[in-house]
Amino acid sequence: MLKNDETICAVITPPGIGAISVIRISGSKAIAISDKIFKGKSSLKKSPTHAIHYGYISDNLDNVLVSVFREPHSYTGEDSVEISCHGNQIVTKKILESLRANGARLAEAGEFTKRAFLNGKIDLLQAEAVAEIIQSRSDIAVKRSKNQLDGFLSKKITTIRDYLIEAISLVELELDFAEEDLEFVDKTILTEKVQNIIKLINELSSTFKSGRLIFEGINLAITGRPNVGKSSLLNRLLNDDRAIVSETPGTTRDIIKEEILIFGALFRLFDTAGLRLSTDKIEEEGVKRAYQAISKSDLVIHVTDIDNISEKLEDFQIITNNKTVIKVINKCDLLTTDILSQIKDKDIIPISALTGYGIDELFKFFEEFINSKGFYTEETSLVTNIRQFNALNEASFSLKNAIESIKDNRSGEFIALDLRTAVNHLKELTGEITNDDILNSIFSKFCIGK
Amino acid sequence: MLKNDETICAVITPPGIGAISVIRISGSKAIAISDKIFKGKSSLKKSPTHAIHYGYISDNLDNVLVSVFREPHSYTGEDSVEISCHGNQIVTKKILESLRANGARLAEAGEFTKRAFLNGKIDLLQAEAVAEIIQSRSDIAVKRSKNQLDGFLSKKITTIRDYLIEAISLVELELDFAEEDLEFVDKTILTEKVQNIIKLINELSSTFKSGRLIFEGINLAITGRPNVGKSSLLNRLLNDDRAIVSETPGTTRDIIKEEILIFGALFRLFDTAGLRLSTDKIEEEGVKRAYQAISKSDLVIHVTDIDNISEKLEDFQIITNNKTVIKVINKCDLLTTDILSQIKDKDIIPISALTGYGIDELFKFFEEFINSKGFYTEETSLVTNIRQFNALNEASFSLKNAIESIKDNRSGEFIALDLRTAVNHLKELTGEITNDDILNSIFSKFCIGK
Repeated sequence: MLKNDETICAVITPPGIGAISVIRISGSKAIAISDKIFKGKSSLKKSPTHAIHYGYISDNLDNVLVSVFREPHSYTGEDSVEISCHGNQIVTKKILESLRANGARLAEAGEFTKRAFLNGKIDLLQAEAVAEIIQSRSDIAVKRSKNQLDGFLSKKITTIRDYLIEAISLVELELDFAEEDLEFVDKTILTEKVQNIIKLINELSSTFKSGRLIFEGINLAITGRPNVGKSSLLNRLLNDDRAIVSETPGTTRDIIKEEILIFGALFRLFDTAGLRLSTDKIEEEGVKRAYQAISKSDLVIHVTDIDNISEKLEDFQIITNNKTVIKVINKCDLLTTDILSQIKDKDIIPISALTGYGIDELFKFFEEFINSKGFYTEETSLVTNIRQFNALNEASFSLKNAIESIKDNRSGEFIALDLRTAVNHLKELTGEITNDDILNSIFSKFCIGK
Repeated sequence: MLKNDETICAVITPPGIGAISVIRISGSKAIAISDKIFKGKSSLKKSPTHAIHYGYISDNLDNVLVSVFREPHSYTGEDSVEISCHGNQIVTKKILESLRANGARLAEAGEFTKRAFLNGKIDLLQAEAVAEIIQSRSDIAVKRSKNQLDGFLSKKITTIRDYLIEAISLVELELDFAEEDLEFVDKTILTEKVQNIIKLINELSSTFKSGRLIFEGINLAITGRPNVGKSSLLNRLLNDDRAIVSETPGTTRDIIKEEILIFGALFRLFDTAGLRLSTDKIEEEGVKRAYQAISKSDLVIHVTDIDNISEKLEDFQIITNNKTVIKVINKCDLLTTDILSQIKDKDIIPISALTGYGIDELFKFFEEFINSKGFYTEETSLVTNIRQFNALNEASFSLKNAIESIKDNRSGEFIALDLRTAVNHLKELTGEITNDDILNSIFSKFCIGK
């Protein structure tokens, strides 16, 4: 249990007006400080853990409910108090002032969770999951971050680390008996073991692609010539009984139009109004804008209409290299069934933004895309941020060095060193090894009050 | 205790992202319904009141703390549960969905407080105080609404009502013995008693002027010709180390520029940029704008500068009739001490928005204004809304009728009827007499979750 003499406090509910707001106080003096400004039936000092008391606070500023949590049975692992007052920012400000006047200080961003980590209540991956669950903007993001909070990723890392330590023990056993020139470990078996571990790590780090799409959302650019019905398609997608998450204001150079949830996944729709595709030359400004939107996109819907079926897509294909492109032909309400059946052969989805024709097929495509990106796999471990991804890659890199050393018949010390380095990278991941810089960089991204 | 079979639920913390959000469930099935979606160490059904339980909710959607309150020891007076989950709207939405799937329904605006009222936990004035404390935007508004929540106004009304019932009993005693033609009550004494009650009621209803200013804020119009430095004065007032509460967007015709707290009171500053004052004729548009801003204002700062000292204010005085007007002369940094001392004699405050000269004196004026309006009296009872004000006036009106009846030597029945009507108006005030329309009109103004 880490000792920290400072008692910290902050509003832990969202800012604004509501029925109630909650202030958390945590630290060795949390109960004593709260008791000084609270008048209830009895002193908080005598309160058992997980008990709620009704009374007045801060010279009768407000009526409150006060919850007492005794260490280690609290979020932070320290003595903690939660004050539930009326949801007014003047009230919360004044209560914080009284707490500070009695010896508490304002908590920094993420400081409650940092203390939970430092006190061993959660590991670093679980701490990151707390921030992720709060910031999640889709059902699947909540579910996946809850998995991480439940320790699924941590358990997988621990398993891999145990395999590694087993391999190290083999190498080190040989080192202990080095003078006797005995060979305890079969090089082939050792190589196999390490290769297997690399495979496990790479499988894990490959989930980062899904992780990024799940947590940051899928960027979807709608491209095409003017007047092919891009805006109508946008509206059709938005109105199709799916919840609009928000209208996010963007920059003038690259406007994010809307965010929507499709099959529980967050899609961010980009406008590319300037795109001009023609058989001769793509206008300069059009290319610029297209590049901007398309380079940020994970998925592109390219819209043509019945007047432009024959347009050549060579230039367009250069800029959409490595992107998943859905080609749609709009305004198909104007076509006969005969022509429609011809189009279907050409790997283009015929739609009508006006009537809704073909939109189901488009959504089917979205669903396939989401599934192909591992949104709904049974797999419960998911790498969700670049820190985790990098640590895994570093571990993998060290293990590849180890295999090289084995191949080159280098001394066991070198092999052991590479394996130990890989273990340390895994320990960094879960926070068993850490330093102030890493912790600050992680917790400063939290909101105040978490 | 009112029986209401429906169990209701709502998020009671402000909307948005935060460390935690809280959902309240209230009603006879609150504990049973919560227990269905909660998995902790033990069943909530066995929980004592005011106890907190840690566990999982809604198919492991989130980790939560659940607080149990047993009737009558809850806000509503009914069995209640508060679920503290991560502060994410997807999480709260899904928990509400599970609660609804298990038999709860979403609470209407103000429904928790309405139940608290109907179950006799608080009277109607206290219920209104709950909404006021949440919406308070200044320290003094919080303090005054807390007084009302503590029942100070209710107690005063009850005292007045008791005086009235005493007077009624005198009249009715006489009625009981009417056949014997005895005179139990001295008409002069009765008149005095009723007049005294009218005085108490009028004293109370006269606090509504303060109440309105305290809760809605003091509208302050800054008027004056163009280029006299109105905007500089505005900026000087705003930057003078006082907190800016908010920038409220207004209409184009009448722009509210800023809201600030001065000596704990909320001031709303109005721009009157179009005002043209001249010796010949006030331009039509200028008058219109001036009327709009000035008619809404409680206080006017009229700014002139050193070039316009001699301007005639007759026209201006017509439109500021019955308003408190502070006359300031700006740009006094350009004047010599001699001229400044001359100005002081003329009841005009010399200031310099540029250097800050004279601004202290302006704030002294604000402080006097606030004190003169009863913001900081020792008086703890305050009429805060038009419903209360009207009920008091109705009571007062009935009592005046009673006095007329006494004067006219009318039968005791008439006097008793007038006095009874006054009592009923006081009972409406505290909610002892009420009807659905009144209740709906009061509680529909609350926020959801309160």
